[in-house]
Amino acid sequence: MKTYTTPLGLRQVRVTDAFWKHEMELVRTRMIPYQWEALNDRIPGAAPSWCVHNFRAAARLQARRRAGEPWTYEVWKGTFETLPRDGEDPDQDTFYGFVFQDSDMYKWLEAVSYSLMQHPDAELEKTASEMAELVCSAQDPDGYLDTFYILKNRKGAFSNLKDHHELYCLGHLTEAAVAWHQATGKTNLLETAERFADCVAEHIGLEEGKKPGYPGHEIAEMALLRLYEETGEERFLKQCRYFLDQRGQKPHVFLKEVNLERAEKEEKPLPEEDAAKLFAYYQAHEPVRQQREAVGHAVRAMYLYSGMADLARLDGDEEMARACEELWKSTTRDKMYITGGVGGTHVGEAFSRRFDLPNDTAYSETCAAVGLVFFARRMLQMHPRSEYADVMERALINTVLAGMAMDGQSFFYVNPLEVDPEACRTDKRLNHVKHVRQKWFGCACCPPNVARLLSSLPQYAFTANGEAVYVHLYMASDAETMLGGKPLCLHVRDGWMQGRVHIDIESDGAQGDICVRLPGWCADPSWKSTKGSGTVRDGYVVFSGEWKAGDSLDLELPFSAVCLEADWRVREDAGKAAVQYGPFVMCTEEKDNGHYLHMLKITPDSLDARVEKQTIGGIELPVLQVRGKKLAQEETAALYTPWKKQPEEDTRVTMVPYFAWGNRGEGEMRVWQRTE
Amino acid sequence: MKTYTTPLGLRQVRVTDAFWKHEMELVRTRMIPYQWEALNDRIPGAAPSWCVHNFRAAARLQARRRAGEPWTYEVWKGTFETLPRDGEDPDQDTFYGFVFQDSDMYKWLEAVSYSLMQHPDAELEKTASEMAELVCSAQDPDGYLDTFYILKNRKGAFSNLKDHHELYCLGHLTEAAVAWHQATGKTNLLETAERFADCVAEHIGLEEGKKPGYPGHEIAEMALLRLYEETGEERFLKQCRYFLDQRGQKPHVFLKEVNLERAEKEEKPLPEEDAAKLFAYYQAHEPVRQQREAVGHAVRAMYLYSGMADLARLDGDEEMARACEELWKSTTRDKMYITGGVGGTHVGEAFSRRFDLPNDTAYSETCAAVGLVFFARRMLQMHPRSEYADVMERALINTVLAGMAMDGQSFFYVNPLEVDPEACRTDKRLNHVKHVRQKWFGCACCPPNVARLLSSLPQYAFTANGEAVYVHLYMASDAETMLGGKPLCLHVRDGWMQGRVHIDIESDGAQGDICVRLPGWCADPSWKSTKGSGTVRDGYVVFSGEWKAGDSLDLELPFSAVCLEADWRVREDAGKAAVQYGPFVMCTEEKDNGHYLHMLKITPDSLDARVEKQTIGGIELPVLQVRGKKLAQEETAALYTPWKKQPEEDTRVTMVPYFAWGNRGEGEMRVWQRTE
Repeated sequence: MKTYTTPLGLRQVRVTDAFWKHEMELVRTRMIPYQWEALNDRIPGAAPSWCVHNFRAAARLQARRRAGEPWTYEVWKGTFETLPRDGEDPDQDTFYGFVFQDSDMYKWLEAVSYSLMQHPDAELEKTASEMAELVCSAQDPDGYLDTFYILKNRKGAFSNLKDHHELYCLGHLTEAAVAWHQATGKTNLLETAERFADCVAEHIGLEEGKKPGYPGHEIAEMALLRLYEETGEERFLKQCRYFLDQRGQKPHVFLKEVNLERAEKEEKPLPEEDAAKLFAYYQAHEPVRQQREAVGHAVRAMYLYSGMADLARLDGDEEMARACEELWKSTTRDKMYITGGVGGTHVGEAFSRRFDLPNDTAYSETCAAVGLVFFARRMLQMHPRSEYADVMERALINTVLAGMAMDGQSFFYVNPLEVDPEACRTDKRLNHVKHVRQKWFGCACCPPNVARLLSSLPQYAFTANGEAVYVHLYMASDAETMLGGKPLCLHVRDGWMQGRVHIDIESDGAQGDICVRLPGWCADPSWKSTKGSGTVRDGYVVFSGEWKAGDSLDLELPFSAVCLEADWRVREDAGKAAVQYGPFVMCTEEKDNGHYLHMLKITPDSLDARVEKQTIGGIELPVLQVRGKKLAQEETAALYTPWKKQPEEDTRVTMVPYFAWGNRGEGEMRVWQRTE
Repeated sequence: MKTYTTPLGLRQVRVTDAFWKHEMELVRTRMIPYQWEALNDRIPGAAPSWCVHNFRAAARLQARRRAGEPWTYEVWKGTFETLPRDGEDPDQDTFYGFVFQDSDMYKWLEAVSYSLMQHPDAELEKTASEMAELVCSAQDPDGYLDTFYILKNRKGAFSNLKDHHELYCLGHLTEAAVAWHQATGKTNLLETAERFADCVAEHIGLEEGKKPGYPGHEIAEMALLRLYEETGEERFLKQCRYFLDQRGQKPHVFLKEVNLERAEKEEKPLPEEDAAKLFAYYQAHEPVRQQREAVGHAVRAMYLYSGMADLARLDGDEEMARACEELWKSTTRDKMYITGGVGGTHVGEAFSRRFDLPNDTAYSETCAAVGLVFFARRMLQMHPRSEYADVMERALINTVLAGMAMDGQSFFYVNPLEVDPEACRTDKRLNHVKHVRQKWFGCACCPPNVARLLSSLPQYAFTANGEAVYVHLYMASDAETMLGGKPLCLHVRDGWMQGRVHIDIESDGAQGDICVRLPGWCADPSWKSTKGSGTVRDGYVVFSGEWKAGDSLDLELPFSAVCLEADWRVREDAGKAAVQYGPFVMCTEEKDNGHYLHMLKITPDSLDARVEKQTIGGIELPVLQVRGKKLAQEETAALYTPWKKQPEEDTRVTMVPYFAWGNRGEGEMRVWQRTE
């Protein structure tokens, strides 16, 4: 029996779900157009992206070159130093913004491609097509494609793999190219990506005369495997394998880069033994097969582990799979917020030590949760176990969705679990924490990442391998696949938010397994089908047999309000509890409960939750009223007084889904509640 | 009846107290010699101070000038940029280190002076005398004295009052000069200080041609008043009054400095309305008489408020006194740790917003607690109310003493209330928090500040005004004063740490009040005397009459273990309790209670404290065993699991005085305990 699975194609799934469709439509109708404005620097009050500007500048350079015109832009003046001053016109031939700005274009093209597969749109396709052409026309003759270096005549290209994101841009270009190819059948971007990958392979590798490098910010790994899967070209599989196996090897290529920089400043070189300490941020402290603890920049880590899991699957590489399994455990068992967010510290946007999960200073970057969804889906592809899907859903629903406001046009980069607006406004220690979603970011990695994930959502709901089809996320939809060589369609009916899933099967004799997930949050699931009661395997109910029209599956997956505690080693949550309702992590907001949320306690052993529906930002969501106590906010005689039992009164504490917080004005918010 | 009082002179009090004498002797025998080594850059592994070096360089310059030799050191190369590299000899004519480094010499001289008054030491006096001479010989002919600017030929002198500590150095010089004069009768340093003050007055003031400036880092205010009190010269009173009244006035002199700097960089000037926001750090956001909230750099704030209180007392200035009173309330009612530490945030070493008192990231600089002791003593001098003495004692015993290890040779700059050594070692967010006391600091403000405070301790225990003598701190000692024109000696016997104070009076008919404090921590004080039962006024028992040999006072001030809570608005302490035993704030340490202190709870409503004596670092201290619970440290099934009542068992929680923490090896520490 095959265990590995691949996601259903986006054209194979039509989503009709009230909840998920709403989020996807937000992306399609609000976010993608908004992002387009951002790429073109047309959002008032937001930092310009310079993304389209840079591509145009590079394309102009290539055109002049082809025309044999001279190009005199020899000296690079830096990126931010050269920003045009107020009132000054930007120089049309100068690169502006972050070194990785090209990736914003690629993420947008990728999201657009997914969207087009679900929802054709000729005008959008035309715009995207122009952009794809623009990208292609910016490429250097040898395949090199990074406008930052192209606009400085390649001076220093590949010299700073550690921090200058050329290979990151290769990765995002490739993701976009594959999606664009799938969406439109056009090969222009795909060929551009292939040529850039080949150009990289000309310069980077273990062969004589090449630099034994690899990406500073990972993503090329998983992207190259998509390119391999899309084109069948083994060289991309090989290139990915090289990147992964070379990472963290000695002599350390990043240390060499550092020491070249130091030599320029006449500083002594750092010794090889410093490499591990210095490069944990990049997950380059040791060879990836030896890595066991999730460390460093959380987004990079998630992308790396995703690539590792892909390669482990494609190569059937047990050693790599074991490293993935251990890194999964470290990530989700020791270092993940209850919201599925990862990255406990803003210092390096990174994982902190085990069990260090502060709520108010949390980083929990939206992109890192997106990355955890990627990683989880890839672990699922290797081994369909519901624990992976549980984490995937946790991160997706609670943190990825939190990253975007209900208007689809403002965003969180950082997702704290406890917010005091006054502190955010005044406290420099919380500079990274915003209490209202922002219009855009200079480093706008998160919003486009949310867009590309949400617009490809069906690929996270369903995977299959011809022998079995898996339903990982419940999502009202019509999903087609092949089972035993014959077509089969799952008509998933809406109702999961009410605790009921009904799936009608449409087929004419497809033979194989339909496997539906038993979510970890459901204490009391039940099911039946026209094919009997199935068997439970790794958290999925497996229904087997030959499928005909009229077959159906029914699951009862009732939501209930469950009080959770954190591992006792999570000091910040000691004595506190969080409430989850179905997959929704709940939070308290000032809007409902008044100021000073820390003066509320909930009653964990008899929550007695009353569930109401409330429309927040245009969508109906469950809102809980749980039993608790409200402590008296009395005048005190002094700052420190003899301990006494605080007067408190019974109250109902109102809780809304965390992902929807901050959509009803400014105010305090808190996930971990004091307990009675 | 007079209410204002002044401290007894250091020669009038002979300390014999087992506890206090031990601390004072640590300073005399360990710290002062150690500091001397530090000033001379002879502490292996510690950052050099360059203090003596800089004075020698300046003195050499003056000698050359007097000899008519050329001096070519025109160009200043910066301070840290010019530090000699490894193996390189320092340039004998170059200033090194922080701009305020001169002050280290002054603090040392001040501490030595106090020490000499209590404990004559010919050799130490000889060394100090040489240093006083060195300081005098470094002075410019016009009285200017700041080696940083002297060694750059005064280029830029008084141009950056905001951040370059010339007036801070004037303040510390003056404090040292007065102490040196009192200790030795020598006027050399006093004259040097007077000449520098006069030089400052030539350049700074409201008169035509002068800069309307004032100190960026306050201290000159209170120092000038000491100079006035020592010399009787009204001009120093006037100079202080000017500094205080000019502070925060518009047009803002610091803004002018900023805008001159900006003009050099061709940046637009900032408008006047930005001044308040920019200069709160310096307490220069508004005129001092209008200030009501303690803000900005905590040490600067404490020094400013001390100067204000001195001036209010000397001028009988009710408006200034009211500002002091409000700033006192803001400091101690809204922004003070239970340990008497102030400064909740390391950002700007500053006060945070009201009730923001985080325990693990606390700043609570030792110097700020020293400053709070200064401020409290001055409030006491204005109004002898025991609340001031309570805070003074709280800061002194719990934070100032914590700043110094029991070896007298290692120090805390920052005094957190919760420490996890692993976090301190690895977490950059806690860079400022050390879990072991350090040998010395590049910016070595704290250790010398502790030294000068502890060696002048009797001045905080006793104040008098000829009509009354006040005992603010209990300290076994013989203290002489004049009462009603006749001498009176208080022989305070040891025993306060056992809850008993016996004072024998020696006098031949002195007439007036002897006022002894009823400490806030004592719930059940009792007293008697040969003069009856006295009357209670503002927290002092006042015994009046004519005093003869054989008169005595007896107080029973029993220590008890009291469980305290913080104002409910202090979010970080919600649901937690701290234990105080007499004046000692207690803490738990890993050494006694094992790892994971957050897995302990104490039982606030029945602490049932058992008191033991334990010798820590050479001194016998009270150690408590209080009733509590120990939560089971069980293996957990997952990071987040359904809430359940944690298994716990009865335990005794061991608590030691906070000030003595970290004297028995590395480990966790915690002041605020979870509660049952």
